[in-house]
Amino acid sequence: MIETIYGKQAIREALRAGRRVRRLLVAAGAQETGVLREVLELATARGVPVQTVDRAQLDKLTDHHQGVAAEVDAYVYAEFADLLYAARADTPPLYLVLDSLQDPQNFGSLLRTAAAVGVTGVLLPEHRAVGVTPGVRRASAGAVEHLRVVRATNLVRALEQLKAAGVWVVGLVPSASERYDAVDARGPTALVVGNEEQGIRRLVREACDFQVSLPMEPAIDSLNAAVAGSIVLYQYYSQRLPPDGQRPSSSASTARPARRRPGA
Amino acid sequence: MIETIYGKQAIREALRAGRRVRRLLVAAGAQETGVLREVLELATARGVPVQTVDRAQLDKLTDHHQGVAAEVDAYVYAEFADLLYAARADTPPLYLVLDSLQDPQNFGSLLRTAAAVGVTGVLLPEHRAVGVTPGVRRASAGAVEHLRVVRATNLVRALEQLKAAGVWVVGLVPSASERYDAVDARGPTALVVGNEEQGIRRLVREACDFQVSLPMEPAIDSLNAAVAGSIVLYQYYSQRLPPDGQRPSSSASTARPARRRPGA
Repeated sequence: MIETIYGKQAIREALRAGRRVRRLLVAAGAQETGVLREVLELATARGVPVQTVDRAQLDKLTDHHQGVAAEVDAYVYAEFADLLYAARADTPPLYLVLDSLQDPQNFGSLLRTAAAVGVTGVLLPEHRAVGVTPGVRRASAGAVEHLRVVRATNLVRALEQLKAAGVWVVGLVPSASERYDAVDARGPTALVVGNEEQGIRRLVREACDFQVSLPMEPAIDSLNAAVAGSIVLYQYYSQRLPPDGQRPSSSASTARPARRRPGA
Repeated sequence: MIETIYGKQAIREALRAGRRVRRLLVAAGAQETGVLREVLELATARGVPVQTVDRAQLDKLTDHHQGVAAEVDAYVYAEFADLLYAARADTPPLYLVLDSLQDPQNFGSLLRTAAAVGVTGVLLPEHRAVGVTPGVRRASAGAVEHLRVVRATNLVRALEQLKAAGVWVVGLVPSASERYDAVDARGPTALVVGNEEQGIRRLVREACDFQVSLPMEPAIDSLNAAVAGSIVLYQYYSQRLPPDGQRPSSSASTARPARRRPGA
């Protein structure tokens, strides 16, 4: 299926990630500088046809086109088997599990953070959740093009399979008493973030090994869902980085103690 | 000046914070449960007139009214002198400085985090930046009602005054080599976050004592501005919390070593 994506960064990243771009639409008179220039250079290098169109034609698509749109294949999801396979690799995986996030802006922002910390993969429930729409691709500033996103038919079963493969599952639950930064996340870890209104569904919550929360001042009940998830992702990412700020090498990663589930 | 705010949480927090609410407008047939019920109870307790209106009347205001709107005084900004005074108090202050954030959604999300970590105050440039509009009040889920927000005529001069009062100024700059979590932020600290496109303006950046960045994987250039600022705020908040997750008492805070600027 072909769909139209928009936003300069989203299109640049789709091109960089080697996604199939059928056609680029550029508004007449758009300033060909900065990111748009990079987009045009990448399109030329990859032999993508570029067509100049009236700005009004792009306005019909969205308010957020920034003068450029691209016809691309619909987002290609990854297979759960790939994520599960990664759980058995030498470098401890870090998964992000989103239980029914509804707001495309939040979803996109959180995917952008997930890509920044190099998560192994993102897991969504197949039903009930927003998928990777053009709006989400734009809200992620194209970061989603660099991620493996999997839609699971049954999220609880998927979590059980990850646990059986040695992954610890941490749920972000505002009422939890354990602090998010008290968890050792250097081993195989999956972070579960719930939606803006209801949080994580009961059965998914019960599948978590730990429930953690962000401490906050009494006047405030909760944070934006994308912000809360991003803070925890960065905490766990920081735990994996060497203190001097160098990138972890794979040898450094394998040198960390394995953190196997009891009985695994 | 009177303006109309909307969003259930934004109105609840305005009432809780004791802001002057002239009139509450509730959509006919709105379900009086959850947060809306709290809003109605608070309004009754404070003697605020409640009027039932057609939903269409609220639709004219915004898509995001959630069945309720309130006529309130325009947001009341704090004075810079109050923030400066706090810099000399016993508990080390933590300031958030926003250099020309343009997107109301990002601005609101970041204010929500700022309130969650209990910042001493928020500093904005008077010109060039979005102010605390009804959209920002809603995007912050009302958190801004619990904050002191100051508009500075000259942001650089304001930072110099804070520095003279013993505050260390940390700028979040994507190109900086020092990691955000390498800074000891337990003393008086101001975190400067730039806007989505241009970052922190040069003169403001030059006024910073430190420039720090968030580490990230090579495929990604930057994070959402509200997310990035929130991650750093939480890091610095965590540094101030005792490790066991208890809230810091003021005596614990004063027990920390003072971190005076050279010559101050």
